[in-house]
Amino acid sequence: MEHKLAELKTRLLEVDDLQYAGAVLYWDQATYMPPAGASARGRQLGTLTRLAHEKFTDAAIGKLLDDLRAYGEGLPYDSDDASLIRVTRRQYERAVKVPATFMAEMSQHFNTTYTAWTEARPANDFNRVRPLLEQTLDLSRQLADFFPGYDHIADPLVDNQDYGMKAADIRRIFAELRAELVPLVKAITAKPLTDDSCLRAFYPEDQQKAFGEMVIKRYGYDFERGRQDKTHHPFMIRFGPGDIRITTRFNEHDLGDGLFSTLHECGHALYEMGIDQGLAGTPLATGTSAGVHESQSRLWENIVGRSRGFWEHFYPALQQTFPDQLNRVSVDTFYRAINKVQPSLIRVDADEVTYNLHVMLRFDLELEMLEGKLDIRDLPEAWHQRYMDDLGVTAPSDKDGVLQDVHWYTFNIGGAFQGYTLGNILSGLYYSAALQAHPSIPAEIAQGKFDTLHTWLKTNIYTHGSKLSASELTERVTGGQLRIGPYIQYLKTKYGELYGIQ
Amino acid sequence: MEHKLAELKTRLLEVDDLQYAGAVLYWDQATYMPPAGASARGRQLGTLTRLAHEKFTDAAIGKLLDDLRAYGEGLPYDSDDASLIRVTRRQYERAVKVPATFMAEMSQHFNTTYTAWTEARPANDFNRVRPLLEQTLDLSRQLADFFPGYDHIADPLVDNQDYGMKAADIRRIFAELRAELVPLVKAITAKPLTDDSCLRAFYPEDQQKAFGEMVIKRYGYDFERGRQDKTHHPFMIRFGPGDIRITTRFNEHDLGDGLFSTLHECGHALYEMGIDQGLAGTPLATGTSAGVHESQSRLWENIVGRSRGFWEHFYPALQQTFPDQLNRVSVDTFYRAINKVQPSLIRVDADEVTYNLHVMLRFDLELEMLEGKLDIRDLPEAWHQRYMDDLGVTAPSDKDGVLQDVHWYTFNIGGAFQGYTLGNILSGLYYSAALQAHPSIPAEIAQGKFDTLHTWLKTNIYTHGSKLSASELTERVTGGQLRIGPYIQYLKTKYGELYGIQ
Repeated sequence: MEHKLAELKTRLLEVDDLQYAGAVLYWDQATYMPPAGASARGRQLGTLTRLAHEKFTDAAIGKLLDDLRAYGEGLPYDSDDASLIRVTRRQYERAVKVPATFMAEMSQHFNTTYTAWTEARPANDFNRVRPLLEQTLDLSRQLADFFPGYDHIADPLVDNQDYGMKAADIRRIFAELRAELVPLVKAITAKPLTDDSCLRAFYPEDQQKAFGEMVIKRYGYDFERGRQDKTHHPFMIRFGPGDIRITTRFNEHDLGDGLFSTLHECGHALYEMGIDQGLAGTPLATGTSAGVHESQSRLWENIVGRSRGFWEHFYPALQQTFPDQLNRVSVDTFYRAINKVQPSLIRVDADEVTYNLHVMLRFDLELEMLEGKLDIRDLPEAWHQRYMDDLGVTAPSDKDGVLQDVHWYTFNIGGAFQGYTLGNILSGLYYSAALQAHPSIPAEIAQGKFDTLHTWLKTNIYTHGSKLSASELTERVTGGQLRIGPYIQYLKTKYGELYGIQ
Repeated sequence: MEHKLAELKTRLLEVDDLQYAGAVLYWDQATYMPPAGASARGRQLGTLTRLAHEKFTDAAIGKLLDDLRAYGEGLPYDSDDASLIRVTRRQYERAVKVPATFMAEMSQHFNTTYTAWTEARPANDFNRVRPLLEQTLDLSRQLADFFPGYDHIADPLVDNQDYGMKAADIRRIFAELRAELVPLVKAITAKPLTDDSCLRAFYPEDQQKAFGEMVIKRYGYDFERGRQDKTHHPFMIRFGPGDIRITTRFNEHDLGDGLFSTLHECGHALYEMGIDQGLAGTPLATGTSAGVHESQSRLWENIVGRSRGFWEHFYPALQQTFPDQLNRVSVDTFYRAINKVQPSLIRVDADEVTYNLHVMLRFDLELEMLEGKLDIRDLPEAWHQRYMDDLGVTAPSDKDGVLQDVHWYTFNIGGAFQGYTLGNILSGLYYSAALQAHPSIPAEIAQGKFDTLHTWLKTNIYTHGSKLSASELTERVTGGQLRIGPYIQYLKTKYGELYGIQ
């Protein structure tokens, strides 16, 4: 069995190399690649995707997994080897259902679409990407149809990002959450609008970058194992255990944009950096689901990075960095500004309270498109309608409407968005578990110390990589399943205090 | 045959994708990769190298080439298809002699060695890389031995970079050149030393970069199809027809370093950018040999970029960029400074006249190592001895001795250096052919116009890619074979005038 396990690992390492090589090409495309490089790059990524898929779905891997099944089942459930055999089998069984040529076609299509999107968005020209998006919808439906027997056509796509979840589960959770959020938004918007003009002074990019990087070093982001670059739509990306990068963008007229994007992506990176390095080179060496990943980005961005204690510690340093802009602004004013609740157009800039309404809206639109009830041609209008209905705002253009998020222009339709809200819910759940174990955490944050929290997260969540599924992890960490209580409690306490609501 | 040709092209495209994906990974490693990323990166590059080699040496490609041979021979010699079949066969026959696992092992070894070198050089610690270099020598000898029947063990390694050349040919050419250079160096060093102190003021990096990029735009470097980044040891790299990048380094206390490195790498890039885009995705879409490639970097760096006419045009702009440093320096003083001849330690900083002595020295050491006459342990001492004998200088340390060039730390020993001097010789030969066709070129350069020269080079050299071998190309462009006459004439005229030598 030792020999077979070693052979399995060797084969998985080759797949890992191809996948992470592809990640480097993707990162380069999104950061530094000159415009004319796009078409060859798309083809190169398609080739790497196809080869990785071919190598992973090789029948020899299936045979090894069969031969190793009994051995794996005889080991402790969460041992490295048992987990490797179990999780690889799950992914293998999924992967063999999709032909490698389809994977390559999809990769190349996403690449073309991404390039078109980077041009279409500034030009506010949805028609430029419309035919591509129609193809995306078609490919997304084809992808789902490789997994017959689903309850809802979105199920296989959701399951791929958040294993174990179905469209119906998400709908139920989202309905529960919406029932809590809508009255909260209503209560807050009945109050006077927060003044956040202090964020709109001129904040030079270089100093923004330096301040953000100072903070994430304190969080524990290791610049020997990563770096930060600029891009259109920020993301975290892993190339291996020693190279876990983040990207951001800056707006010199909005201090919040770049800073909270940096903290957000850093949260994702801390998760990846905290994975047991012994798992490197296997499918276990990455975060376990979109939702759990997002729980970490949102925890470090919001629960920590937008807390009063955090700014009691860091605000003097921020004032030193931007004395002209902030010396006459109190920490209380600043704290209120970065937590201003106001229904708005852009998801990534949305406040914590209304944010989930943006996500739910996209999730619903995805389902309607997949069900064939919403034509791509009618999507911009449907988008505007939903924003009016749910948030009471209307985008002046598609640029800030249907063109705003990169996801549909670089990924399939279905499965890309629910993780954001699952992540918010989980961030509240996990943070409350951390507080239960270490009630001193908020006081430490107010001293700029993150060790206790970071270590608890590493030990209880990060280190496992994908050994445990999201559901297994949540059970283990919180003694129960995903539930909205602690997250809603967090929102109500924080925003109740901020807006004087009982 | 159409069908077989199409299948050949499809297979070659896959190889091309893997190779250029590897190039992206290499570029990233040499520019932005965080330190801890090195070990996974080495493995990823090894995997890509192995897969590219496996795909290229697939027996199906051999079969297609056999089937297509008669068809190719029936077409005009320099037609795209005939060239593709002929050149691919030559490369295929070479590649099948080397096992893919050996290629992967070598790639990974070079990677480890490169990383060690980036640490060993600043630390001036040759012992840190010595065992790795011993392995490199061993691998280099093994590589040569996959090609039995050579006259000299370096022959297969030289042939791989400069097809058609043998160690004995290089030795003969180098001896001829040395016989001309040594008296010239002697005559110049008998004259008073040029004052180049104007280059050693403080020149801020950002302005250096902006000035260099302004110049290469005028040369014709297309920033839509490329970019410039910083690295340890400058290089040009191609990822596809629309993505041809250069790298440089800056020394804020030496204006020449960054500027001429930028012009040099731009010369390489102009070659790659000028290749007929219809050849993209095939082995024909790259420069034909190390020597021809270097002829273009040296032509644009030296023959153009260090000419009096060039600076008559650009010096006012340089003075505007650096008024405090240069306003009191005349163009004549500046021109003399950038063409100062003085035996020195660092190859890449060497003047045009002594430069080739650096190259010959390395070439000779390579042969001695490969012949087993020089042990790696004795290399630093042999290096110092040769510098004393040939150039009359002694490095204070290995940092500026055996550790100075990246080549032996990222490539096999044998074949990496001769191209630099072959390139110099060819630059003189090709430039004199261009002048014969267009005597107006120097006058145009003095007006900052490069179109006539660039177009002539594109039409006569660049566009062909690898369709013609170096020898075929030289024959066609100059009506004869490689000869040192025009290059020596160029040096004697330029430096005779500069140093008042008959």
